[in-house]
Amino acid sequence: MNAKELFEQIQSKRSFLCVGLDSDITKIPQHLLDTDDPIFEFNKAIVDATQQYAVSYKPNLAFYESLGVAGWLSLDKTVRYIREKYPQQLIIADAKRGDIGNTSEMYAKAFFENMDFDAVTLSPYMGSETVTPFLKYNGKWSIILALTSNKSAADFQLISDSNGLKLYEQVIKVSSTWGSIDNTMYVVGATKAEMLSQIRKLIPNHFLLVPGVGAQGGSLSEVALHGLNNQCGLLVNSSRAIIYADNTTSFAKTAADEACKVRNEMDMLLQAKGL
Amino acid sequence: MNAKELFEQIQSKRSFLCVGLDSDITKIPQHLLDTDDPIFEFNKAIVDATQQYAVSYKPNLAFYESLGVAGWLSLDKTVRYIREKYPQQLIIADAKRGDIGNTSEMYAKAFFENMDFDAVTLSPYMGSETVTPFLKYNGKWSIILALTSNKSAADFQLISDSNGLKLYEQVIKVSSTWGSIDNTMYVVGATKAEMLSQIRKLIPNHFLLVPGVGAQGGSLSEVALHGLNNQCGLLVNSSRAIIYADNTTSFAKTAADEACKVRNEMDMLLQAKGL
Repeated sequence: MNAKELFEQIQSKRSFLCVGLDSDITKIPQHLLDTDDPIFEFNKAIVDATQQYAVSYKPNLAFYESLGVAGWLSLDKTVRYIREKYPQQLIIADAKRGDIGNTSEMYAKAFFENMDFDAVTLSPYMGSETVTPFLKYNGKWSIILALTSNKSAADFQLISDSNGLKLYEQVIKVSSTWGSIDNTMYVVGATKAEMLSQIRKLIPNHFLLVPGVGAQGGSLSEVALHGLNNQCGLLVNSSRAIIYADNTTSFAKTAADEACKVRNEMDMLLQAKGL
Repeated sequence: MNAKELFEQIQSKRSFLCVGLDSDITKIPQHLLDTDDPIFEFNKAIVDATQQYAVSYKPNLAFYESLGVAGWLSLDKTVRYIREKYPQQLIIADAKRGDIGNTSEMYAKAFFENMDFDAVTLSPYMGSETVTPFLKYNGKWSIILALTSNKSAADFQLISDSNGLKLYEQVIKVSSTWGSIDNTMYVVGATKAEMLSQIRKLIPNHFLLVPGVGAQGGSLSEVALHGLNNQCGLLVNSSRAIIYADNTTSFAKTAADEACKVRNEMDMLLQAKGL
């Protein structure tokens, strides 16, 4: 999927919502624990209920790895399920990998060949080699950490060089030359919405993956105000606020209601932008 | 295992060698492909043959993840095998994870609870939250990327702030306050040996995990010259130069010979330092 196709999905769904599948065995509804694969059953129900309001799903790899082989199996089944049943959804491996060239090639194989993800989040600390092996895959995306939504993001991302350029700005400036707007996105936290305008000056046309709306306290309208471009240019992620809105047997219906609310707000924001 | 215990292992083995298990299904000896779990059989043979010359093993997660569930199973078996048969070996998950607090907790569970690793490599880009959840585990280690051995490390790690402090120096300075010399190490590439003296001024007592000797061209004696401290303070990793020295049926014997050569050089370097 390229940027144009992603924008078409957004226009047709009237949504730029990405649902984060941070599926935690200790937080999912109790009744699912009696099934053979509780995490997969949870994901399947959440995806079926929310897919009409979302354009993307983002499993957070840590939650699957914490369960070992069983978790990896649940992840694999989840990706297959979404791919087969909802082929237009952009499936993001929230993996934040980042390593030397020959190792990055292996991670690219893991996510783009062994599993059929469309995109993977990457940490830029080790430089271009962490990203370029992923860019060789046609139609796949590298989503590079720029300015993250967490508190301790400031520890290093906001350090200024001698010209006053902050580390996250350097990352964007340098790494945006490695690929194109059709294979590179950036993670920019919703909790830093006021910095989005500045980021849009550096990369007016790239898609941004924006976590931090919902449980982490970011505002969707602020993000839209500073981040929307003429092709939308945003994927806004919500995880806990949707998938854990309810942990009774009605969890999927409640998740759908929450996703629908977000979609309706996104629809208005798109309209206001003439999209 | 704390720093003192690790140093005791090093003194007893006369070695500070870490063998990197970058076990690639396309590079291991052909005859292993007929077994049920070629990657595990390869690792088992390498570990059995080299363990007397090494104090640590470091599976590179990408190589296992690239094989999906089967790879994760091989990894799990490898860790169990080393833990049971050679309990004094420090087992490092070369995972380079790095995420927000609640996600880091999940990764810590994955590597320190679900699997019995002693240490995990971590990328500092997202700040203290990427590390602190791992530090809660007694006897376990966080190994933080500082100055890596790859070419594109210079893209961001060498950026200087307005006081002339480079990013990797900032990372070391700030993150060395999060834990102690008993639970924190740093990755410093052997290809940057001349910078080790500078790093030793910032952290005289921390252990450093040094990749890049061997296939990547770093020199062991240079690393020792600039990096050894009074408790050794070094783990030097070699992967390809040992595990792929030979891909005939004699591969394990050849790997042992290569590891023995490195150990003998390390013994001399330790002696020269009076250790």
